[in-house]
Amino acid sequence: MSTPNVWTGARRRIHMQEVGPRDGLQNEAAYVATVDKIALIDALSDAGLAKIEATAFVSPQAIPALRDAEIVLREIRRKPGIVYTCLVPNVRGAERAIDAKADELNLVMSCSETHNIANLRMTREQSFNALSDVMALARQANVPVNVSLSCVFGCPMEGDIDPQVVFDWAARFADAGARGITLCDTTGMAYPTQVSALVRDFRSRFGSLETTLHFHNTRGMGLANVLASIEAGADRFDASLGGLGGCPYAPGASGNVCTEEIVQALELMDFDTGCDLKALIDAAERLPALVGHDIPSQIVKAGRRLDLHQPPKDFAIWRDRALAR
Amino acid sequence: MSTPNVWTGARRRIHMQEVGPRDGLQNEAAYVATVDKIALIDALSDAGLAKIEATAFVSPQAIPALRDAEIVLREIRRKPGIVYTCLVPNVRGAERAIDAKADELNLVMSCSETHNIANLRMTREQSFNALSDVMALARQANVPVNVSLSCVFGCPMEGDIDPQVVFDWAARFADAGARGITLCDTTGMAYPTQVSALVRDFRSRFGSLETTLHFHNTRGMGLANVLASIEAGADRFDASLGGLGGCPYAPGASGNVCTEEIVQALELMDFDTGCDLKALIDAAERLPALVGHDIPSQIVKAGRRLDLHQPPKDFAIWRDRALAR
Repeated sequence: MSTPNVWTGARRRIHMQEVGPRDGLQNEAAYVATVDKIALIDALSDAGLAKIEATAFVSPQAIPALRDAEIVLREIRRKPGIVYTCLVPNVRGAERAIDAKADELNLVMSCSETHNIANLRMTREQSFNALSDVMALARQANVPVNVSLSCVFGCPMEGDIDPQVVFDWAARFADAGARGITLCDTTGMAYPTQVSALVRDFRSRFGSLETTLHFHNTRGMGLANVLASIEAGADRFDASLGGLGGCPYAPGASGNVCTEEIVQALELMDFDTGCDLKALIDAAERLPALVGHDIPSQIVKAGRRLDLHQPPKDFAIWRDRALAR
Repeated sequence: MSTPNVWTGARRRIHMQEVGPRDGLQNEAAYVATVDKIALIDALSDAGLAKIEATAFVSPQAIPALRDAEIVLREIRRKPGIVYTCLVPNVRGAERAIDAKADELNLVMSCSETHNIANLRMTREQSFNALSDVMALARQANVPVNVSLSCVFGCPMEGDIDPQVVFDWAARFADAGARGITLCDTTGMAYPTQVSALVRDFRSRFGSLETTLHFHNTRGMGLANVLASIEAGADRFDASLGGLGGCPYAPGASGNVCTEEIVQALELMDFDTGCDLKALIDAAERLPALVGHDIPSQIVKAGRRLDLHQPPKDFAIWRDRALAR
């Protein structure tokens, strides 16, 4: 028997975390009706995701697309075992999210000083201080915190980011009580060699943290980066239904890795994602009507691997002619 | 020191074989002018591909897009070391290709009986017999032959294909004198676990054959399949500039894996593709004007990993405000 490797999943459990309702919809020009957001999240719950980023408690002026955060979180049908997490930028957002009974607060800052200032109008140190206040509040309310570190694998303005910078910020958040850290490839700069080394190193330093990898498919390396992460010991991945998402600071950047594409690939490879692929595709097929444009998902276009097609209409004639020769 | 694995290329040589001028352009509605085809192939030669499928010697009525095969093959600037191969469906095509001094004849048949009849109007046995005549002619002319086996990883009409069927056809072509076999994932049904096992098994049986893998990115698994193949010992890959290509029998099927995407990923991983990524992107950027539509290439949209962007125009103001706090 050969050593188990990444090419054979052997039913190893991989936790899929859906970011479409927040990271995806936040980037859309169209406002998705509250009732449709709720139906989308309920469909995702039924499809077996381990965690769903349901919304963000941000200023409705800053991100009008998610101005219905309270209603969404109140009206979704919560399934036991699924973590409904919410993005929270500051203490005000944390208070709202805690009031709305979010299962987890997801905080964001960037490992790149330039990206942090561009995206959050603060230095990283200022972000850390603000998020420390949020974490103190969450601790009082007994709500766990995840920190999503942006630009871990590169910044579209600065270039490469020293892994030591990533480890230093992760350590500060771990010391402050974060349950989990998400290593975000915000604009799709990660490549498998880098991912393999960084994930291995990160896990050896932060083995007790819940570690998530968050990739974008900007340069076609999304699935390969997921596989490199798994081989380095990771088992949690963010993904976005239909491949929605993007980043305003990297023109041409495509969306997050596509939930149904990653799930199909991992299930074919005999990993256990806990997800129902058909249910994911059904939900993804409803996205274009919600967002008003085509979606990146290739499976919605081409179907599952064994969704077979009929032969061309003249096939029987061609076959009979060939056999008569 | 750790064992070398697929995540670290260590400058191992990977041979990239371009199929865009044939497999790509054949699927296009627009006729690409002969002079533009020649310029495209010359650009590909300069970009360092190991092999270029330059055209097909087929009936101009059947595939008018490639009706200029003789002129293309005569007028391109051939670089020493690059193999200029041509698709040939029958003895008539082989005579033309040999007259035109093709470096190699590329023959095609399918491992799926249904796909072979649909695509070639012959049973597989009839195809084999016809191609045996082509191989006899090539042997006389001292021109090497490669056989591209379609639907090796699944047929969009039949479903899974037994690997033994692949090995049996490969053995018959090897016995008939083929120099190489291309294992084609014609409609993007391959997945890494399957690829890993089949490539390993194929190479243990046909170690002396030049073995090429030909993937499509239909379901987002193209690069992962390339990496699974490399770990199983393969070192030759077909790819198509810009990701052109497709298959009429699998609606929604996307094109071949994209040359510049595969090259960027493999070079970042420290494999030696022999290719100049910048030259490939320059050539790919000219494709939309030739084919009259947007191309799948994500790198043409997003740039190379370290093609950096300027911060937003108000960045200095935001930074100064943050630092003043």
